[in-house]
Amino acid sequence: MTPTTEDMATFRRFHRLGTLFVLPNAWDYTSAAALAAAGFAAVATTSLGVAAAAGKADAAGATRQETLALARVIARLACLVSVDAEGGFSVQPEEVADFAAEVFEAGVVGVNFEDGRADGSLWPVEHLCRMVATVKARVPGMFVNARTDTYWLAGKRTPSLPETLARVKAYAAAGADGVFVPGVAEDASIAAIVDAVDVPLNVLCMPGRHTLGRLAELGVRRVSLGSLLFRVALGAAVAAAVAVRDGQSVELTGVPSYASVEALLPVSPAEA
Amino acid sequence: MTPTTEDMATFRRFHRLGTLFVLPNAWDYTSAAALAAAGFAAVATTSLGVAAAAGKADAAGATRQETLALARVIARLACLVSVDAEGGFSVQPEEVADFAAEVFEAGVVGVNFEDGRADGSLWPVEHLCRMVATVKARVPGMFVNARTDTYWLAGKRTPSLPETLARVKAYAAAGADGVFVPGVAEDASIAAIVDAVDVPLNVLCMPGRHTLGRLAELGVRRVSLGSLLFRVALGAAVAAAVAVRDGQSVELTGVPSYASVEALLPVSPAEA
Repeated sequence: MTPTTEDMATFRRFHRLGTLFVLPNAWDYTSAAALAAAGFAAVATTSLGVAAAAGKADAAGATRQETLALARVIARLACLVSVDAEGGFSVQPEEVADFAAEVFEAGVVGVNFEDGRADGSLWPVEHLCRMVATVKARVPGMFVNARTDTYWLAGKRTPSLPETLARVKAYAAAGADGVFVPGVAEDASIAAIVDAVDVPLNVLCMPGRHTLGRLAELGVRRVSLGSLLFRVALGAAVAAAVAVRDGQSVELTGVPSYASVEALLPVSPAEA
Repeated sequence: MTPTTEDMATFRRFHRLGTLFVLPNAWDYTSAAALAAAGFAAVATTSLGVAAAAGKADAAGATRQETLALARVIARLACLVSVDAEGGFSVQPEEVADFAAEVFEAGVVGVNFEDGRADGSLWPVEHLCRMVATVKARVPGMFVNARTDTYWLAGKRTPSLPETLARVKAYAAAGADGVFVPGVAEDASIAAIVDAVDVPLNVLCMPGRHTLGRLAELGVRRVSLGSLLFRVALGAAVAAAVAVRDGQSVELTGVPSYASVEALLPVSPAEA
């Protein structure tokens, strides 16, 4: 079922409120359901989490099927959903638009596409522009967030503010509803990107590097948690397993009960 | 690829060592890979985690496909794998044996079958006996752990030690390599179950209720973590999301980096 007009308007409005739009990223049905139950009105997906859960490489275009399957189950939840589609899972803009239309049909209100490639290089700016324009032509109601990996791939290339500004301007001009620059952390760079475009700027939450208050002052409109929650979850699980094995105590405060997890599921066993 | 003779022997031997066999339960590729990397030589799956990740009910026989898919990806890891197959995903013993043969073909060395039903009742004892015997006839090398839910479904029925003893004896006589009584916690009951059968007893780890040392003294041979790790992971992720939203600090100690998660995956993006 496609999103309602009201859902689409609400998701857009979240980018224009007085408070920063904090978008947590889920990787499976229950992480999304638990985030919705914790009061998040919108939930996104993390491509690392989706790929890692399935045992596939991230950012390699290998998880179209898993991403679509996840989108379909979490779009039924009582939250708005935005999906990370990596580079669109295809180099053909029409096939990327097919994907966007499929998730929109499932009820998804937003999608992210990135210009970073698996080898650490970036697609020519025209590539993501064509993709954005093709998706918007096919699914005008979809909130398309165009991500540039100029800072994200810093380990593989030198971040460049001028290149970032050129790319976000081009993506906005091509019709993107928002731009996403994961990895950018310096106040001056963030402020410059905000100034460069009329569409909302999304950055990645980097705990310890900046506060939400400061990001809001700089004009950031949306903060994603990326793979943080998936990594927190994985670290906590392994630490608990090691603690049990080593005869140490396991902190159970905040650990949901079996029954409370069951309550997040669509059908309880007793009804099945 | 079917498990090697050595893998099957090793998994059996883990039930006869001087130290208790602690078997942590994974729900996706990365949780299994991270547990293997943390030094666990064997990893099991949690039916709650597998069902919840997919957005399906637990113990309702709805996750045959997801369980098989997970078994296939984690059987490639450098750890031995045992799979929780709920009630076998079918009421037909031959179909249950088909499932066991499929996961064995993938490299899985052990499987759990339970007598609890979605409505809180138990199958007649003969049902699980037939299932165990059929599976063992088809896949003699598979370690079949027969689980009775006499204590597990305590919220829906009154736990009975005599019934538990009768069931574990019947399952062992039918060919089970081990018996599993999740939920049993009292020392005297555990000791009585150990005395009743020649095969290893598996109980569920219940943090705060007993220590591994005491369980070993009572003669328990294997301890499963069940859905604990999945629930710890979920609780930690939601707590981190709420902390970010509320402007509180997020504890990053023990949280794996993006690169370390990527390193767990079969193919890194740079190679893709």
